[in-house]
Amino acid sequence: MNKVLFENMCIIGVGLIGGSLARAAKIAGVVNNIVGTGRDHANLVEALDLGVIDEFSLDIKQAVSKADLIVIATPVGAIKSVLEEIADSIPENAVITDVGSTKGSVVDAAKAVFGELPTRFIPGHPIAGNEKSGVIASFIKLFHGRRVILTPQLNSDLKSLEKIKALWAACGAEVVLTSVEQHDIILAATSHLPHVLAFSLVNTLDQMDNKNDIFKFAAGGFEDFTRIASSNPQMWSDICIANKDALTEVLNKFSEDLEFLKLAINSQNAEQIRELFQRAKKVRDSVKKVFPAVY
Amino acid sequence: MNKVLFENMCIIGVGLIGGSLARAAKIAGVVNNIVGTGRDHANLVEALDLGVIDEFSLDIKQAVSKADLIVIATPVGAIKSVLEEIADSIPENAVITDVGSTKGSVVDAAKAVFGELPTRFIPGHPIAGNEKSGVIASFIKLFHGRRVILTPQLNSDLKSLEKIKALWAACGAEVVLTSVEQHDIILAATSHLPHVLAFSLVNTLDQMDNKNDIFKFAAGGFEDFTRIASSNPQMWSDICIANKDALTEVLNKFSEDLEFLKLAINSQNAEQIRELFQRAKKVRDSVKKVFPAVY
Repeated sequence: MNKVLFENMCIIGVGLIGGSLARAAKIAGVVNNIVGTGRDHANLVEALDLGVIDEFSLDIKQAVSKADLIVIATPVGAIKSVLEEIADSIPENAVITDVGSTKGSVVDAAKAVFGELPTRFIPGHPIAGNEKSGVIASFIKLFHGRRVILTPQLNSDLKSLEKIKALWAACGAEVVLTSVEQHDIILAATSHLPHVLAFSLVNTLDQMDNKNDIFKFAAGGFEDFTRIASSNPQMWSDICIANKDALTEVLNKFSEDLEFLKLAINSQNAEQIRELFQRAKKVRDSVKKVFPAVY
Repeated sequence: MNKVLFENMCIIGVGLIGGSLARAAKIAGVVNNIVGTGRDHANLVEALDLGVIDEFSLDIKQAVSKADLIVIATPVGAIKSVLEEIADSIPENAVITDVGSTKGSVVDAAKAVFGELPTRFIPGHPIAGNEKSGVIASFIKLFHGRRVILTPQLNSDLKSLEKIKALWAACGAEVVLTSVEQHDIILAATSHLPHVLAFSLVNTLDQMDNKNDIFKFAAGGFEDFTRIASSNPQMWSDICIANKDALTEVLNKFSEDLEFLKLAINSQNAEQIRELFQRAKKVRDSVKKVFPAVY
């Protein structure tokens, strides 16, 4: 049996991630009472009906006022305004964390609101999720075998850090610490860039003259490649802006590499093309072998 | 019971596609005897052991000499040299077809060898396959519910065309006729472009400073997006060169659209980004609904 880590967990935004964390933490016995809050009344009622939360309040200040753990699980673009709203209502000893897909923007938002990142605010990001959303999509095992990145600062409160680590471990996740910058460039490369390319590819095809034929003949490769283009547009627009610098860096690298490949194709340099493809295949095949748990 | 369409089918290149066609046509009862040929002796022995073919010959001229159907199922880049080799050995009444992923290059190769596309040569392309290769990967149902594009010319022999249509229909496929140009631009957009982007993305990530971390944190979206980067480098290098013009056209369109999105991200134009993503999501979601069979 796990030790109770928090008496009162308040989840701001009870969607796929927030709802799954509530379910997993409750089952693991590491939290006692769970209060949900957010802007979507119907979603909160559903969360209560599903037993994901114990109570809810549409008054976000009231919802956090008795919490010893505050989890911000809203889209990244809303985190700053959430912090502004709750700033004066956060109990003195409460630990704060978030689940945002970018970390530099969250730390900047906290600095803007509090002057500096509060020592009990441990920024976090579970590398889990799918293209669905809402509490209805949440499930206990979402974080099983997944990695959760935490990006504490030098002056972070160590006890708070340990408790957040224990919370995620109890939910079945493997916790990893990185710097804010490292997190943002890694996620820009492996997650944000693929999403941007998938969205963009679908739009390119949709603008072609014979687009009806084009989608009619789309085969398996296209399906896999563009599945993530069904993701939430608001959430991904938020992420692109929040992680603008790192994303722009990898986008520029990608464009350069693609230009090089275009030249090779245009000059019909079979050897160069094959070499580039061989290198990619080797890397991709090895990723499969080394990290089977992630897949 | 299907009518026998061909007495002697010769398959040049008994791999995933050629082997699956042999299996399906035999089970359907539309061919009697199947002769395999190709350069890989061990693969031909395996095809015989698996019962995929009835006999084989390493002498390609001899293999085609008694065929009333010749199926060229080699990589696209080898088709011209295959045609050169068999040109003087093709029986007068034999029907010829191929399964190449590009059609303009195949028609050009035939014109170079024969002066014009022989009237009994019906170019074809089954939109089926996966990232595996060799006869060991072949299976009867590969073409079930899949589309096969045929690109006959104005002077094509209609009886040959009808027999090739019947062959594929007997294998469970839906046959569609398009022009050579239409085929090549559609496939460039839905298949060749995604493959090029997937290969290129993996290479971009592999060149980054913190590449070990990058692949360690790659999540589900990355997996789906880059699965096709495990495809056969030689085959895809061939395809890029064979379909250079159409591929370059869609690559250029894609680059333009991506540049536009980069500008939107750089200027933090949330509304524009969201609008682009929304459009893509709508299209992608509708593709899923309209063509469930393809997925």
